Amino acid sequence: MNNKSYWIWHYGDYEIFHTMNVHLRREERGCHRPPFWKISVPYTSCKFRKQINCQSGYLICYINGCGHIAVDNVLYPEKTRIELAPGAHTIEVHVSNHGGLPAIFIESDVCPSDESWTCNHFAGELLPVGYNAHFYRKDQNPEVFPFEYKNVLPITKENVNGGILFDFGTELFGYLNINGVDEKDEIDVFYGESREEALDTEYSYITDKISGKSNYRLRQRAFRYVYIKTLSESIEISADFEYLPLEPRGSFACNNELFNKIISAASYTFHLNCREAFFDGIKRDRWVWSGDAYQSARISRYLFADKEIEQRTLIGLIGKEPIEQHINTILDYSLLWIINLYEHYMTYGDKAFLNRIYPMAKKLLEFCETRLNKDGFIEGLPGDWTFIDWSEIDKCGAVCAEQMLLVKVYSAMAAISEELQTGARDELIQKSDLLKRRVNEYYWNQDLGAFIDSYQSGKNHVTRHANIFAVMYGIASEEQAQSILKNVLKNDKITKITTPYFEGYELDALAKLGEFGEVEEMLASYYGGMINLGAQTIWEEYHPEMRGIQHYAMYGGKYEKSLCHAWGAGPIYLFGRYYLGVYATSVGYDTFTVEPNLGGLEEICGTVPVGEGTVTVKLNKEKLSVISTKAGGTLLWKNKSYPLKPNTPTVIEC
Amino acid sequence: MNNKSYWIWHYGDYEIFHTMNVHLRREERGCHRPPFWKISVPYTSCKFRKQINCQSGYLICYINGCGHIAVDNVLYPEKTRIELAPGAHTIEVHVSNHGGLPAIFIESDVCPSDESWTCNHFAGELLPVGYNAHFYRKDQNPEVFPFEYKNVLPITKENVNGGILFDFGTELFGYLNINGVDEKDEIDVFYGESREEALDTEYSYITDKISGKSNYRLRQRAFRYVYIKTLSESIEISADFEYLPLEPRGSFACNNELFNKIISAASYTFHLNCREAFFDGIKRDRWVWSGDAYQSARISRYLFADKEIEQRTLIGLIGKEPIEQHINTILDYSLLWIINLYEHYMTYGDKAFLNRIYPMAKKLLEFCETRLNKDGFIEGLPGDWTFIDWSEIDKCGAVCAEQMLLVKVYSAMAAISEELQTGARDELIQKSDLLKRRVNEYYWNQDLGAFIDSYQSGKNHVTRHANIFAVMYGIASEEQAQSILKNVLKNDKITKITTPYFEGYELDALAKLGEFGEVEEMLASYYGGMINLGAQTIWEEYHPEMRGIQHYAMYGGKYEKSLCHAWGAGPIYLFGRYYLGVYATSVGYDTFTVEPNLGGLEEICGTVPVGEGTVTVKLNKEKLSVISTKAGGTLLWKNKSYPLKPNTPTVIEC
Repeated sequence: MNNKSYWIWHYGDYEIFHTMNVHLRREERGCHRPPFWKISVPYTSCKFRKQINCQSGYLICYINGCGHIAVDNVLYPEKTRIELAPGAHTIEVHVSNHGGLPAIFIESDVCPSDESWTCNHFAGELLPVGYNAHFYRKDQNPEVFPFEYKNVLPITKENVNGGILFDFGTELFGYLNINGVDEKDEIDVFYGESREEALDTEYSYITDKISGKSNYRLRQRAFRYVYIKTLSESIEISADFEYLPLEPRGSFACNNELFNKIISAASYTFHLNCREAFFDGIKRDRWVWSGDAYQSARISRYLFADKEIEQRTLIGLIGKEPIEQHINTILDYSLLWIINLYEHYMTYGDKAFLNRIYPMAKKLLEFCETRLNKDGFIEGLPGDWTFIDWSEIDKCGAVCAEQMLLVKVYSAMAAISEELQTGARDELIQKSDLLKRRVNEYYWNQDLGAFIDSYQSGKNHVTRHANIFAVMYGIASEEQAQSILKNVLKNDKITKITTPYFEGYELDALAKLGEFGEVEEMLASYYGGMINLGAQTIWEEYHPEMRGIQHYAMYGGKYEKSLCHAWGAGPIYLFGRYYLGVYATSVGYDTFTVEPNLGGLEEICGTVPVGEGTVTVKLNKEKLSVISTKAGGTLLWKNKSYPLKPNTPTVIEC
Repeated sequence: MNNKSYWIWHYGDYEIFHTMNVHLRREERGCHRPPFWKISVPYTSCKFRKQINCQSGYLICYINGCGHIAVDNVLYPEKTRIELAPGAHTIEVHVSNHGGLPAIFIESDVCPSDESWTCNHFAGELLPVGYNAHFYRKDQNPEVFPFEYKNVLPITKENVNGGILFDFGTELFGYLNINGVDEKDEIDVFYGESREEALDTEYSYITDKISGKSNYRLRQRAFRYVYIKTLSESIEISADFEYLPLEPRGSFACNNELFNKIISAASYTFHLNCREAFFDGIKRDRWVWSGDAYQSARISRYLFADKEIEQRTLIGLIGKEPIEQHINTILDYSLLWIINLYEHYMTYGDKAFLNRIYPMAKKLLEFCETRLNKDGFIEGLPGDWTFIDWSEIDKCGAVCAEQMLLVKVYSAMAAISEELQTGARDELIQKSDLLKRRVNEYYWNQDLGAFIDSYQSGKNHVTRHANIFAVMYGIASEEQAQSILKNVLKNDKITKITTPYFEGYELDALAKLGEFGEVEEMLASYYGGMINLGAQTIWEEYHPEMRGIQHYAMYGGKYEKSLCHAWGAGPIYLFGRYYLGVYATSVGYDTFTVEPNLGGLEEICGTVPVGEGTVTVKLNKEKLSVISTKAGGTLLWKNKSYPLKPNTPTVIEC
C-alpha cells in the first residue's frame, strides 16, 4: 500500500485559485486593475470522503480552512489523533475556506490523503479529488504556488539624471531587494523592460514608492532595468528571480545563427511566461488569455511538453459554471479553448482529464451556439469581443475567421465525443460538414480567389486571417489553398500580419504548403528584425517601419507594449513541427510521424518530445539520422516510410 | 439633488456575504461544522458605473477591496481627489475582493454613490447596485453587520461541583466577557440553554477554553447559563448582548394569561432569531432554513413587519447560479421559498425587489421541474431531502404534501408572472389546475376521507401534513376540508404534530375552518405545556409525555434540541391573522380586510401592521372597536362590511 499523503482539494480548485490570484494581481501605474471578465473562484466549502477497511490504524487530519473530520459520523477537530478500530469506516472531512483554497492533508498509516479520496462542494457527485505531487508534506500550503528562486545581481549600475539605473542584462520576474536605504528617505522606484521606460519616470508602467525602512523586498515585478531616484552610494539591489523549474525536452539548432538566436530568445521569452498558467506577457497584464494560451500550448509541446501547465491553463480559463460570457469575453478565444483541449488530448492522451473537463467543454460549445445567426454562423453579440488579431479585419456581422474556428471546433468535439463515447459524434461531424459547406458558399470569393471577412458588409474585404485558418485546419481544398497562397499569403497588397501571434499561424500555413522559402524570409525579416534591434525577448507586436521608442508604445500607452510576449515563441513550434517534422498521428503519440525538411538550410538538428519519449533528428544535405526512444514512430522521407525501432538510429544517405 | 453617499455593492452580495458568514460560523462541541449544502458567495470582482453631466465638481473613491476608479477611461488609485471638468463623464470603478464584499463609497458634490449607480460582475447586464441605509459613512465597513449591543449582567451566581454557575435569567446571544482571571489558569467554559446543559460538562454543546490572559471577550454564543470551571473568587462576567434593533409594530393581548405568556415568550424567541436573516434557532446551527424562514416571515408580518430581513433571507437562501440542489437540499424548502416570495410581495408590494429576484425564482422552479416523475408529481431524487416535518410520513416516491406545495407554487408564480407581465401566467395556472386535479385523483382516499401520503407505497398512510396544506392553501374543497377536519385534524388516531413548525400550520388550518375551540386547546396544551415547564423561549420540538432533561435531547445528542427556536412563534401569526383578523386583499396592503374573532376568549386587543400603517382592534363580548391609520381597509363583522376611514374609529356594539 502506498502510504504517501498529499494535500487534496476539490478537483480543479487549485488551478482556479491560482489563476484567480494571477488575474487579480495586475497593477498599472499605481492602479490595481482586475480583468474585465468574470473571475471564477474555488468552492467555499467542500466535503471529502473515503471509505476504508482496516485491521487497525490511526489518522490525523490537517485542514486548510475551518472544518472537522468525522469517522463513522463521530466528529473530531482537526489535528486530533484518531485511532481506528478494525473494520470498515467512512471518513468525511468538511471544510470551509472563503478567500482561500479549501484543502486537507491526512497523516495516517492506513488512509493517507491521495487520489483515492472523493470530494464535492456539498452539491453534485462525489468525484476524485485534485492533488499535486509537489504538496506531500503537512507543513506545506497549497495556496503558495511552488516556484523556484534564484538570487540575481544587476550587471551594470550607472548614475543618470539624479538617480541610479541598474541593468540586470535580461528581463526577469521576481522580487526586487533594496538594501542600505536611509530610513528617512522616501524613494521612487521605476521598472523598465527597456532602458527608456525605466528612465521615463513620468510614464514608466510599473513603479513603487518606498520609505521608512532600510531594507526592502518589493512585490514581484517584471523588469530588466530598475531606476531608483536617489544618488545614495550605500544602496544595493538584487532580485529574487521567480520561475517555474521546467526543463526543455525539445530543442532545435541549425546552421543559421540568426535563427538560432531567434530560438534562444523565443525559448527564454516563453519560459518566463510559463508560470501558474501560460501568461500572455510577463510585464503588463500577466493574464491568462485563451488564444495566447492556445499558441503557447502548441509551442510548449515542442519545448517543455509539460502536461501540467496545459491542464492548469485549460482549467483556469474555463473556470466554473455558469458560463455567462466567452472566455476572456472573446468569441475566438472560446473556440480556441476547445481546439486547444482537443490538441492537448491528442498530445498527452490523458483520458481522465478529458473526462473531468468534458462537461465544461460541452457547456462552452452550447454557450457558443447561443450566438448562431439565422444563417447558422457564429456572431458576436453585444458584450462579445470578436478579436481574431490586431488588424483591420472587416468585423461586420459573422466574421469568416470565426467560422473557420467553429468548423474545427465541431470536428474536435466530434473526436472528443468519440473518445468518450458520448454518442454525440455523428451530429457534430454533420455540423462541421454543413458549416464548412456554408462557409464556402457565403465567404469564398471566386474572383478574389480567397475567403472574404464578411458576407454581410458587401465589402468583399480580404485579410490573411480567415485564409490562414482555412489552410491550417485543412478547411480549404487543395485548389483553394493554392489560390490563397497566390492571392493572399504571397500578395503584398494584403495587409501584413503585425503580431507574432498570427505570424505563428501564418508560418504554420506557409510551412504546411511547403513554402519554406517564404517561411525563412519571414523568420529573418520579422523575428530577426526584432533580434537585430537588440531584443533579447520577443515582443507583443512588431512593425518594421517604426523607429526608436515607437516600438514600445501600444494601446495608447508609451510603454504599454509587452517586450516579452509568449506568443512570440511560435518559431519553436514551427521548427519542431515542420523542420524536424514530428507530429502525433494517434492519441498520446501512440503513433507518430517524423517527416524532416531542411527547407533552405544546410543543416538542422533537434529533439522533439513524443509522449514519454523523445525523437532526435539530424539532417544535412548528405545524411539524415533519426532516433526515437519510444515505439510507434514512422519516418517519412522522399515518399518512403521507415518504421522507427526504439533506440535504434535510422540513418539515410540523402 | 440628494448628495448622500452610501456604500454600494453588487445587488444581493451584501445579503449573500452575511448569510455565508452566518452559515460558516457553526461550532459544535469544539468542531467547526459547515452546512451540508452548497454555499453561495459574493462575486469576487465587480464593475460599478455611473454617467453624469455636471458643471464642475470633485470625487474621491473609497474601495472595500482592491481596484481603481476611471473617469472617462483615465485611471486613478482610490482615495485620489479627482476634479471634474464641466460636461458629461463616465465614471467606472473596478473592484476585486476575494474573501470579502467588494464595495465602494464615493465622496462627491455631484456624483455620490447611491442607488443611481449600476454594477455587474464583469458579465451580464449593468443593473442598479445594492446598498443599505445604514452604511452612509466612508469609515464604515459593510462586512460588519450593523447589530446593536447591550451589556448584561448575570442575575445569579452559585458554586456547583468545583465551578461557578452564572444565570443570565433568560437566553441571549452575544459576547461573553470574563474578567479577573489568573493568567496562569487554564479554564473551561460551558454554555447552556438549560442549567443542566451548562453543568453537564461532558455533553455541553458549546464550550470554550481560556488561558494566558486575565480578561477575555469570547466569540459570540447563545446561552442563558454559563458554567466556569474554577472557584476563583475574583472572576466577574458580563455579556455583550448582540441583537437587531427591531421595534414591534404588531401586538396582541387577551384575558387569558397563559396565552399572553405564550405571546411574550414567542416574541422574545422570535426576536433573538431575527438577525442577518431569519435563523432557525439561536444556539445550535444558527443557519438559515427556507421552511423555517417561511414560517418566520408569516410571523414577522404580524410583529416587526420588517421588509428588509425578509429580503435578506430570500436573497441569502437562493444565492447564486447555477442552482444545483434544493434550498438547504430540501425539496419542500425550495417550494416554500417561492410561496414565501409571493406572500412577501403581497405584503410589501416591492416590485423592484420582485423584478430583481424573479429570474432566480424562475430558475428554481425550472430546477424543481427536473424532479417531476412520469405522473407529473414532484419527487425527491438521490441527494434531495424530502423533509416536510419530523414525523412518520410515508415518504415512498412522490409525497402528497410536496404536491400540495407545488400546486400553490404554480399559482404563486402565476400571480408573480401577472404582476411582472412575463407572459407565463396562463401556462402556470394551467399547471396548477392540472396538478390539483391529479392530486385529487391519486392521493384523495374516499374511504379514509383524507389525502394519503403516497400513492406508490400502497400503504394508504395518512398524516396530518398534506391535509393541513390542502386546507391552508385552499386546495381541499369545502367538503374535503370538513372531511379532513373530522378524519384527520380531530382524529386522535392520526399521529400528533410534535414540532411547533407544523403546529403553526395546523393552527392556521384549524382557525381557517373556524375551529377556535381546538385552537385554544392546542395553544394551552402544546405551547402552554412548554411555558408550564418554565420555558421562557419556545422549543424546537415538544413531546408532552417526556420528562426532565429528555426534553433537551434531539438528533441523538443530549442537549442538541434548540430551546429557542423561531418556528415556535407561530401563535403571533395566529392571533394577528385569525383573532385580530387582519389580512391583505391586494398587493402591499393596498386593500385589506379586518375580520376579528373572539374565539373562546373574553377580550382581545392588538395591533397589526398594514403597509405603512397599522390597524388596532379591540373586541370583547360587548363592543368591537377598529381603527386604521391607513386607507383601504374593510371591516367584516357578522356578514356585514364596513369601510374603514383612516384614523377614524369604527365602533360596533356587539
